[in-house]
Amino acid sequence: MSSSHRTIDVTRLSAEGAIARADDVAVEEPLEIRVAGDTLAVTMRTPGNDRELALGFLWAEGIIASLDDVASVAHCGRGDDEGRTNTIEVTPAPGAHLRLPDDSPARRGTLTSSSCGVCGRRSIDDLLARCKPVEAAQMDRAALVRALESLRASQPLFAKTGGCHGAALVTLDGAHVATFEDVGRHNAVDKLVGAMLLAKKLPLRGHALVVSGRTSFEIVQKAVAAGIPIVAGVSAASSLAVDVAKRSNVALVGFAREGRCVVYAGAERIR
Amino acid sequence: MSSSHRTIDVTRLSAEGAIARADDVAVEEPLEIRVAGDTLAVTMRTPGNDRELALGFLWAEGIIASLDDVASVAHCGRGDDEGRTNTIEVTPAPGAHLRLPDDSPARRGTLTSSSCGVCGRRSIDDLLARCKPVEAAQMDRAALVRALESLRASQPLFAKTGGCHGAALVTLDGAHVATFEDVGRHNAVDKLVGAMLLAKKLPLRGHALVVSGRTSFEIVQKAVAAGIPIVAGVSAASSLAVDVAKRSNVALVGFAREGRCVVYAGAERIR
Repeated sequence: MSSSHRTIDVTRLSAEGAIARADDVAVEEPLEIRVAGDTLAVTMRTPGNDRELALGFLWAEGIIASLDDVASVAHCGRGDDEGRTNTIEVTPAPGAHLRLPDDSPARRGTLTSSSCGVCGRRSIDDLLARCKPVEAAQMDRAALVRALESLRASQPLFAKTGGCHGAALVTLDGAHVATFEDVGRHNAVDKLVGAMLLAKKLPLRGHALVVSGRTSFEIVQKAVAAGIPIVAGVSAASSLAVDVAKRSNVALVGFAREGRCVVYAGAERIR
Repeated sequence: MSSSHRTIDVTRLSAEGAIARADDVAVEEPLEIRVAGDTLAVTMRTPGNDRELALGFLWAEGIIASLDDVASVAHCGRGDDEGRTNTIEVTPAPGAHLRLPDDSPARRGTLTSSSCGVCGRRSIDDLLARCKPVEAAQMDRAALVRALESLRASQPLFAKTGGCHGAALVTLDGAHVATFEDVGRHNAVDKLVGAMLLAKKLPLRGHALVVSGRTSFEIVQKAVAAGIPIVAGVSAASSLAVDVAKRSNVALVGFAREGRCVVYAGAERIR
């Protein structure tokens, strides 16, 4: 954990060829927020300012009404050099009345987190262990970049609003299969996979998933679950997205623009 | 609910003045996903393809392993013209063994959703009712646009990685107070509010929140909870973000670029 960024080896591809280089990615790790020993929420976050994150979350949810409601906020267990772990415990002040909603998981010691592939799994190893390898595939750089560049053309809601994400499925030669849109990136991918499930087309061997914006853990995890061997985003990947891709044989591509792209994992599978 | 977009009245501001016009925003509404009568998750989504969304979510979470595990997927209650509501029920096939994790909320009929201000509240009215009005404030367009344009300069992690969000607090004359970064937009805002809580500076009257990317419900809700009267994003707002802003006296600004911006709510408070 510890740092907010990690340096990894990537491959930059363009019409001129491949260049190996080092690149920094934002670190993404789960933070479990506990209140009085019970798990309130798990959020995928960038390590750093975890105490502020926990307090801000409790404030926004209306669970604390004052700093006086809190006796302490501290990481649990033995941490890294900065004493940081991926679990943080909020201890209520003596006599404080926290406003946990009636149906709050924190009332029951259960776990929360929608749409992010984190439900019920608290450690990074657990998260990665869920992602089984997919059947690898190869794709031409030019076809992949073209698919990304034409993503917007298959997004009518984006054209109207300028404010939603898109997830498209394409074949290995870049032919468009389907696009779904949503205010949430994860929802757009869920809609796509759900549609292919209904069409009895899972697992999606021999296809690529193309998404607007960044690729985070949840996006790659959902692709892996659907058997998709290539994932490409318009923008950067997170550290945990790269880890999952490497573990699961997924070629992970980012910053695919103007004929160029950065390959975070599986560079040998992008020709 | 029903449509994926909604036309609203906005004000476009530039150095040349104000122009009232109609604009389309992406609809954002909560979808409660139930399995066998118990709530599994609530996700903020754009209505449309809800069945696919629910199935894709269950697939990614490993809860269903085949379409044969599902008897039906249908909206609950009396819907709109297309029969759509904001609750969808997945009925398992007779004898199907759904793989609900041991600590899954669906095992207990409890509720999930981290970091999105939706914990424990299922209807839009409930969501809006939580947001009390803040003390309104006025701000110059030029100062606000400048604050947005200088957001990147206060984001060292973005400079390194090109892949994270930023949330900054500025004064009404645009002076920078603090910036926090995270792979999740909501986390960046939580870190900011948590830091101000620790500094005993809540409520944040007379300040503006400036965020990279889009403004969704959760961003405005967190601003309202912290008492922030002005929220501005680099990109578009969602329908529910606009609703919350109007209800809570928040001036909501989007697409603030190159001296121009779109005001979704509270145009009289951006000079």
